[in-house]
Amino acid sequence: MQISDQDIFLAHEGGKLSVELRAPIQTQRDLSIIYTPGVAQVSRAIHADPELVDKYTWTERLVAVVSDGTAVLGLGNIGPRASLPVMEGKAALFRSFAGLNSIPLVLDTTDPDEIVETLIRLRPSFGAVNLEDISAPRCFEIEQRVIEALDCPVMHDDQHGTAIVVLAALKGAAKFMKRDLAPLKVVISGAGAAGVACAKILKAAGIDDIVVLDSKGVVSADRTDMVEYKNELAQWSNPRGLSGDIGDAMAGADVFIGVSAGLVDEKYVASMADDAIVFAMSNPDPEIHPDVAAKYAAIVATGRSDFPNQINNVLAFPGVFAGALDAGARRITEGMKLAAADAILSVVADDLAADCIVPSPLDDRVAPAVAKAVADAARAEGVTS
Amino acid sequence: MQISDQDIFLAHEGGKLSVELRAPIQTQRDLSIIYTPGVAQVSRAIHADPELVDKYTWTERLVAVVSDGTAVLGLGNIGPRASLPVMEGKAALFRSFAGLNSIPLVLDTTDPDEIVETLIRLRPSFGAVNLEDISAPRCFEIEQRVIEALDCPVMHDDQHGTAIVVLAALKGAAKFMKRDLAPLKVVISGAGAAGVACAKILKAAGIDDIVVLDSKGVVSADRTDMVEYKNELAQWSNPRGLSGDIGDAMAGADVFIGVSAGLVDEKYVASMADDAIVFAMSNPDPEIHPDVAAKYAAIVATGRSDFPNQINNVLAFPGVFAGALDAGARRITEGMKLAAADAILSVVADDLAADCIVPSPLDDRVAPAVAKAVADAARAEGVTS
Repeated sequence: MQISDQDIFLAHEGGKLSVELRAPIQTQRDLSIIYTPGVAQVSRAIHADPELVDKYTWTERLVAVVSDGTAVLGLGNIGPRASLPVMEGKAALFRSFAGLNSIPLVLDTTDPDEIVETLIRLRPSFGAVNLEDISAPRCFEIEQRVIEALDCPVMHDDQHGTAIVVLAALKGAAKFMKRDLAPLKVVISGAGAAGVACAKILKAAGIDDIVVLDSKGVVSADRTDMVEYKNELAQWSNPRGLSGDIGDAMAGADVFIGVSAGLVDEKYVASMADDAIVFAMSNPDPEIHPDVAAKYAAIVATGRSDFPNQINNVLAFPGVFAGALDAGARRITEGMKLAAADAILSVVADDLAADCIVPSPLDDRVAPAVAKAVADAARAEGVTS
Repeated sequence: MQISDQDIFLAHEGGKLSVELRAPIQTQRDLSIIYTPGVAQVSRAIHADPELVDKYTWTERLVAVVSDGTAVLGLGNIGPRASLPVMEGKAALFRSFAGLNSIPLVLDTTDPDEIVETLIRLRPSFGAVNLEDISAPRCFEIEQRVIEALDCPVMHDDQHGTAIVVLAALKGAAKFMKRDLAPLKVVISGAGAAGVACAKILKAAGIDDIVVLDSKGVVSADRTDMVEYKNELAQWSNPRGLSGDIGDAMAGADVFIGVSAGLVDEKYVASMADDAIVFAMSNPDPEIHPDVAAKYAAIVATGRSDFPNQINNVLAFPGVFAGALDAGARRITEGMKLAAADAILSVVADDLAADCIVPSPLDDRVAPAVAKAVADAARAEGVTS
């Protein structure tokens, strides 16, 4: 697939989104209905019964994609303006895959207090918040505080979207290989937003032996150089008490999950257990080239579209938000995320193969399946309003 | 024109706007261009050259319609949620008449400091701000502070949109009657956002004899019960030093402009000068019924669509913002507003009649004419970036 720079820049000229009317304004009658004097009746009705805002405005199906531009793709802290093409792309995917309205809101502040406060003030403008590309560890605090402050679905996609699709892919790989999930020894390279969320969801799915690494080595209780969230992570991960570097962690491991930009030497993949599973998801350069990994591993996945088994958040977030909004959920729970992973897997359950452990990002069966599963889980858990 | 409640509510179900893709996402190639990995190139380019954000995102042509819901239509302080149908309608008009993207942002705060601060933080998310339905006197302070804080076009439409169209209509009436504008004696009933802005633009257009009334009577320097902005208004209006009520003001006046909900007795219209001009713009109930006013006045206009000469802001705001954005203007000046009024009038200049002093709100020649005039004025004044 040849894509030139010119193709890319041309496709972004003028932005990728437009706000359109759901019905045209062509006559005086149209104008009188959608604007004055007709609109006054609708405003009056909402004033009398605030719940009608869900029925008579677009906000109930509107996801705000919110970023401060501090951790954009692999580019780092490039600021809110430079993050906009990514946020517009995200909004486009919400429309394309889940039929949701979505607007990018990028903030010219990186202060957690100000970000939370701004979203509280904007609360009547949207129905859900997709936090995006906010750097760790700020993203953990910001997500938690926004969830507590707002009575609507809120999810930091870099954490949970990634985690959901990783769990789906790992379940797919295990199922194809007829292996149990729980006893797998998992190594996660990267202790940022995605790494921590992957560790949490795999733990919630029943896996105990999870070892996470940051740039200085294994996150373990005997280290004294770590920030608080990593100390917490050390409390419930790394049950064998490993220390050392990526080589120490990968020897004998069943699963490698790469969510950092750090390269992994071929010899470490060779040191993994038989029938190893390698998810080298760094973009655009995987932690190890998939062709090299395939010399040793039974299953290889990447984040790239030009190799099989593409692990892409787009399999999760459109359906997760659609399902949460369908159910009128006030928050997105761990149970809803686990249900989303199972729904992603369900789409390819009958077609599982070494090069097909997750559906294609373009598979239009995924978002509806995820939405239904998430909505069902929300109703079952009673998190609907 | 029969419009039932059912027609109105049905037209608002699910809201009136949708966010759409400018190009579909159908193939892996599409996804790779508009999302990862392609989008990273565009973000990197904007990071290197921040001005490229105007070329490669939607924000340059995006107007945020911002309200706190404190002065919605004639309904008063109904709050941000109940204001949403109006703001969505406004955004729909921006798309329909000027081809601009527009999103409603309604704020769950009425504190001027917080409103200004929130818009500063959101600045990278839009290209212009249409302040809407914010109560007086807060609207004066908020508009001034937002203009000073943001390097983009900002306009409180209830003030200036109304004022621009009133000036256009008054110029149209005067031109049709072959009368000079400057010597007209003008009475404005209503000293809120619209009334003050009308007074200012008529003064800027050369009219000296302007008398403004609030609910307690003529705004005059000898009153001691007025808030600060009315004291300021008293300094430069009411040159004959009138005091008293609407009857005192209207006796012998040439022009009545109603921008309040206060009714005006027939006898006061009868007391106006010969060939009087009456703009009774309160909605849905004009200050005096147009058929009654027509017994005494030579020209009658209202805000209603079911009578001739509808004075509607939609004649101004789409073109004003489009022109300002076309020119890359950093603010909207008095000169740009005067140019907008002349452009509105120009559309009907050859068709002027007692029942045609302004174009129809649906006349699609208006917004392009206003946009061109406003852009030309911006460039001539050098307010472009």
